[in-house]
Amino acid sequence: MKISIGAKPFVYPAPAWVIGTYDAFGTPNAATIAWGGISCSSPPCVSISLRKATYSYTNIMEKEAFTVNIPSEEYVKHMDYCGMTSGKDENKFETTGLTPVKSDLVYAPYIQEFPIILECKLIHSFEIGLHTQFIGEIMDIRAEESVLNEKGVPDIEKVRPVIFGPEIRNYYGVGKVLGKAFSIGKEMK
Amino acid sequence: MKISIGAKPFVYPAPAWVIGTYDAFGTPNAATIAWGGISCSSPPCVSISLRKATYSYTNIMEKEAFTVNIPSEEYVKHMDYCGMTSGKDENKFETTGLTPVKSDLVYAPYIQEFPIILECKLIHSFEIGLHTQFIGEIMDIRAEESVLNEKGVPDIEKVRPVIFGPEIRNYYGVGKVLGKAFSIGKEMK
Repeated sequence: MKISIGAKPFVYPAPAWVIGTYDAFGTPNAATIAWGGISCSSPPCVSISLRKATYSYTNIMEKEAFTVNIPSEEYVKHMDYCGMTSGKDENKFETTGLTPVKSDLVYAPYIQEFPIILECKLIHSFEIGLHTQFIGEIMDIRAEESVLNEKGVPDIEKVRPVIFGPEIRNYYGVGKVLGKAFSIGKEMK
Repeated sequence: MKISIGAKPFVYPAPAWVIGTYDAFGTPNAATIAWGGISCSSPPCVSISLRKATYSYTNIMEKEAFTVNIPSEEYVKHMDYCGMTSGKDENKFETTGLTPVKSDLVYAPYIQEFPIILECKLIHSFEIGLHTQFIGEIMDIRAEESVLNEKGVPDIEKVRPVIFGPEIRNYYGVGKVLGKAFSIGKEMK
């Protein structure tokens, strides 16, 4: 039986990504988010949401660029830390030891140690309420060669991305393969 | 070393959800999506993206409502099927045997068999390119009592949601706990 658990910002799965931006002084910032997802296939776009009070909000509004950095499991603590403090108070790259690399395509830093990064140009923002949603066009994706499979596709089992569980407030790894997309459904016919 | 893999709609993890809508005749439709995520905490909102050519696009534009249905692993084939055909051609509830239940809060059906469903009222749409993004305010969430933990929070290990891997085109389960959010990062200090 289904029971109401109330209106809240909740879904499974949610991602755990770190957003890279530069501030007005060119200082890199790294901010962890879970509110976001791909929003268009052509042009390829990703949407992320931030509160107005955050340092990243101001940086994206000013620079119209950001990176989405996908951590591997081994960087889960670094990633969590980047969601606990503000770039207004400290340079989180210095605290965590993560390495900012300036993107060649957009005015934003990416995180050297993370296996996959998306370089995004802001194309639209919309103030929803507490959060403002930013739509970024993905100008390019850079991946560590070591996480690519023989077809040049990032192998999720090598990337080992992190899943966030809202409400239950835990991070999880990716589990076992359940089946091939656009294929296993054929058995329903 | 990082190498460019091109500009494409790619992130890890992506969700695998089924969108519930009614058409002009009151026929329920179920459409699988992977482009979406929570977009605001207050009011709680979820964003999903659909192509203009889809049946769900027209239904949401007309009814200004939809549900987000989170499948458990056991319904991965049903979920995959709902992404392979169009509601223009068939009633996917009939083909899959899934049960549509009319939401009391919004004019959209939810899927009885799935453990968690979000009832959403359309508050904004934005045409990005191939996809249009819909922002839905989450009016309520309904969960099977059997997936709640002792605090009334959906336990992700009981829900067993599905993760979609774009490009690698597989579905995955949720894996092991990596740590407590807003907590394990403290070790970085």
